Amino acid sequence: MTRKAAARAFIHPLAVVETRRIGAGTRVWAYAHVMAQCRIGKGCNIGEGVFVETSYPIGDHCVIKNGVAVWEKVRLEDRVFIGPAAVFTNDRIPRADPRFKRPAALWETTRVRTGASVGANATIVSGATLGRWCLVGAGAVVTRDVGDHVLVLGNPARPAGYVCECGLRLSANLDCQCGRRYRRRGRGLALRGRRRRNAP
Amino acid sequence: MTRKAAARAFIHPLAVVETRRIGAGTRVWAYAHVMAQCRIGKGCNIGEGVFVETSYPIGDHCVIKNGVAVWEKVRLEDRVFIGPAAVFTNDRIPRADPRFKRPAALWETTRVRTGASVGANATIVSGATLGRWCLVGAGAVVTRDVGDHVLVLGNPARPAGYVCECGLRLSANLDCQCGRRYRRRGRGLALRGRRRRNAP
Amino acid sequence: MTRKAAARAFIHPLAVVETRRIGAGTRVWAYAHVMAQCRIGKGCNIGEGVFVETSYPIGDHCVIKNGVAVWEKVRLEDRVFIGPAAVFTNDRIPRADPRFKRPAALWETTRVRTGASVGANATIVSGATLGRWCLVGAGAVVTRDVGDHVLVLGNPARPAGYVCECGLRLSANLDCQCGRRYRRRGRGLALRGRRRRNAP
Repeated sequence: MTRKAAARAFIHPLAVVETRRIGAGTRVWAYAHVMAQCRIGKGCNIGEGVFVETSYPIGDHCVIKNGVAVWEKVRLEDRVFIGPAAVFTNDRIPRADPRFKRPAALWETTRVRTGASVGANATIVSGATLGRWCLVGAGAVVTRDVGDHVLVLGNPARPAGYVCECGLRLSANLDCQCGRRYRRRGRGLALRGRRRRNAP
Repeated sequence: MTRKAAARAFIHPLAVVETRRIGAGTRVWAYAHVMAQCRIGKGCNIGEGVFVETSYPIGDHCVIKNGVAVWEKVRLEDRVFIGPAAVFTNDRIPRADPRFKRPAALWETTRVRTGASVGANATIVSGATLGRWCLVGAGAVVTRDVGDHVLVLGNPARPAGYVCECGLRLSANLDCQCGRRYRRRGRGLALRGRRRRNAP
Repeated sequence: MTRKAAARAFIHPLAVVETRRIGAGTRVWAYAHVMAQCRIGKGCNIGEGVFVETSYPIGDHCVIKNGVAVWEKVRLEDRVFIGPAAVFTNDRIPRADPRFKRPAALWETTRVRTGASVGANATIVSGATLGRWCLVGAGAVVTRDVGDHVLVLGNPARPAGYVCECGLRLSANLDCQCGRRYRRRGRGLALRGRRRRNAP
């Protein structure tokens, strides 16, 4: 196998991929279905049974675990982690009756910003923005925006602390044991610097 | 294609449908599995990976989003919306040990009445009746009956307001901005009339 | 069909089973995927769309309902019930960024002990041990260990009573109507004896 071939995307024979816009090194597993209008970046891992419908491009190095549906109007930036069976939505007023179905133009965009992680079986109500490097706890039900680096837990999800880029929780003075230090900005945090060089 | 053909059900080639009792205009998507004892009305949309097992007929114009299992003893009336990854159950005392498995005769019926909507990733404990046009919020865990037009949220799910047929929340005096007006009846609401004609 | 053949495992033609170590009488349904490193005991029922990845052997007479993923590091003992769409995890600090991905050696083992039942759509945060014959309620989010025979409910899951081997709730004096009697031991209960002989 040439180096070039090795860098291509891997598509499991039982996956259904209707687009050719899949980045190098991305893997798509069995029973996943990626629709024609979709674009997926490089180095992603698209788990078994994942359904991708969104017209927004999916960024690089994203991990989408088994059973997740990335509906139209869901936007995933780079290096986003979507845990197994996490659930997105795109219509806050869902009705099946043909008289009351809302056109897609009225659906709300959900935005998952760079580095964010959504825990297993979490639910994201449409219209929310999940901030950079935030962490939505397993089973949480997010009904509003989450700030950068904020940890949210529960139903409905509420802020419960802060997390570092590396994923660890921050101390009260907003330092991480990996050496990164933060300061408050807006409803979340921003990186201020690093104490040591040897952390990842 | 003749008009008659256009009205027939659409079955995705990767779906497994073991019944012929599927109404006109109904669509069944990839990896869905509809068992032999099932009946589905007309104009329904059965999402990817949906599993239909129930012996109760499913009504007309129902929308069942990806990944939902409609187990034996689950009854869906007309124009019901079941959000993605919402979960039904049929046994309140589940044990795998062969000594303690309960026969299907002891399972509880779950009834979803006309026009009701179940939000994404909600859980419905068996035995509950979800009233007409009620709305179960995303991620809610329903453990008891929900009244007509009632909105329930949380784990366990609790009443949090009222919704109109059209899906919008009602004001404190039980009016909707679409013109419909309601009055209290039993544990829920009943339609009282309409103020304007031009609403859907 | 010979008696021996009848005792063999049943593999649905649409399942993908990459191991031969499946016990007699076990059934594996459509769209399920069992990986090469897996072992499954006898008399199990592996539902539609289940994904089995764990290197731990799965015990005998387990029931795993539709859509469950049994990840690496999840350990299921005998006669375990995993409800539909229940979700396991194996990494408490999930990040997609290649700099922060943790090797499998750092993931936490989740242990589900003999006879335990996990309700529909429950979430189990990795590292927890679910005690013998415990019952995790539908939609609960388990973040810590659950004692033997303990019932837990909610998000986060909290103790809400005790259940018998047979699945019924115990009275305040730790008796079951099936005749079994219990006493406290550790953070849970232990079987003390039986009052009657005719219970299952």
